[in-house]
Amino acid sequence: MSASPLTVVKIGGAVLDRESMLEGFLDDFAALPGSKLLVHGGGAQASRIGARMGIEARMHRGRRITDAATLELVLMVYAGLINKRLVAALQSRACNALGLTGADGNLITARRRQPADVDFGLVGDPRECNAAALDALLQADMTPVLAPLTHDGAGALLNTNADTIAAELASTMAATRPTRLYYCFELPGVMAEPRQPDSLIADLSERDYHALRARGGIGGGMLPKLHNAFQALKAGVKDVVICCADAIGSLDQDVVGTRLLRDTDSDCKQSAREQDEQT
Amino acid sequence: MSASPLTVVKIGGAVLDRESMLEGFLDDFAALPGSKLLVHGGGAQASRIGARMGIEARMHRGRRITDAATLELVLMVYAGLINKRLVAALQSRACNALGLTGADGNLITARRRQPADVDFGLVGDPRECNAAALDALLQADMTPVLAPLTHDGAGALLNTNADTIAAELASTMAATRPTRLYYCFELPGVMAEPRQPDSLIADLSERDYHALRARGGIGGGMLPKLHNAFQALKAGVKDVVICCADAIGSLDQDVVGTRLLRDTDSDCKQSAREQDEQT
Repeated sequence: MSASPLTVVKIGGAVLDRESMLEGFLDDFAALPGSKLLVHGGGAQASRIGARMGIEARMHRGRRITDAATLELVLMVYAGLINKRLVAALQSRACNALGLTGADGNLITARRRQPADVDFGLVGDPRECNAAALDALLQADMTPVLAPLTHDGAGALLNTNADTIAAELASTMAATRPTRLYYCFELPGVMAEPRQPDSLIADLSERDYHALRARGGIGGGMLPKLHNAFQALKAGVKDVVICCADAIGSLDQDVVGTRLLRDTDSDCKQSAREQDEQT
Repeated sequence: MSASPLTVVKIGGAVLDRESMLEGFLDDFAALPGSKLLVHGGGAQASRIGARMGIEARMHRGRRITDAATLELVLMVYAGLINKRLVAALQSRACNALGLTGADGNLITARRRQPADVDFGLVGDPRECNAAALDALLQADMTPVLAPLTHDGAGALLNTNADTIAAELASTMAATRPTRLYYCFELPGVMAEPRQPDSLIADLSERDYHALRARGGIGGGMLPKLHNAFQALKAGVKDVVICCADAIGSLDQDVVGTRLLRDTDSDCKQSAREQDEQT
């Protein structure tokens, strides 16, 4: 582990639509010390611009079905409009951003998802991240800004979930650098009771997550996000937090959000709590 | 001049619409040995997609007037759709392409063009190219693919002529690397008589260019292209050629096209011709 630490941040599409939250987030992200990498979504923006072009958004359980016209749309909106605006905004904050997709520099190759009960179309599941290329960019003091697209290496671009890309990149880089991963969105973190901000779960083990899920306490887009987040934790990412976009200014203090715990960590924590209660 | 030679190629938008010419071009470009860099246009594609979105193309002497909606459009079409398709196509040909704008890595800062007789809107004239960042990418064996957009460093993206970007990048890199510049489009080169392929001008000095221009032999988009091309030649670019996109396969032999000559070269050539005639 000779390389410097890396912070991977994923920013959700809903934040991109809230100007003051986005501006604050970009200030905070630009000010993060050390090597860093931003992954962004943009589904809501793609749906809006698609509507203007007569391209209807078709979703299945919160995930977009990507036909040829939709792939064109997300190339334009994710890799063009959103990505370059973020890059220019970060550059104006003295953060040397470099906007990319998984095709650029062969950063992320993916397999097209095979049709099962649903055919998601031109959608890819990451197969391999190119750690050497990312290292070269980070060592040149560049901050990669990743749009959620990958390629199959044979000329096809593929729409790919941004949460998954963030987890895959963090997992790959964790092999050579101490790496932390922050999923930033418009809510304070994982809630025990949706829409009740005071029900924020500060620590969440995978065991607790499965229990919470079983009793219906977590749903929608949070499920794949947590699945990805726990995968990254198991792959060796040091710290995985799900938090509000306004929370990363305090990353080095106690960030407010939901910190994921390895089951062993949670066992230790549980023992400590029991000991506290006994004393 | 310790760094390896660099080939800068600009590909015009009309080639992007001709599938077999484009495929052949990409084969040839991917096979070019050594460091290389591709700059692309895309005006025709932007106009078509703009029409679908209700964004009307407004031009003045062949140059696009860029209001806020048009900037969004060209971000989507140049930096998203066209750029990423080129990148994926080059990756499938084992060329490690990295698609960028001038904002990425702070590659090209520009000044917004001040309104004179015409207000071109959000259009930038390059101010500085970042040779160190380009060097870092080239040394990591990446092939930058540049969409014709720059930034002002203060958060604004600017639409910028692709011919100008190619000339600026080649001129900057010529200070540290032997650099050659190829403007590829759908015609064989500069013609003495438009639409007569056998009137191709094989060599063109700046003096001859001004003479040809004065008698109306060159017009339209060729004027700014030649202006940029001669600027690059004067800035130290070793070889500047305007040729058909199908000609770069033979770059190291005698490429068919219009090679620009320094006036001194042309004087030498003239002397040699006179000597030939005398002997």
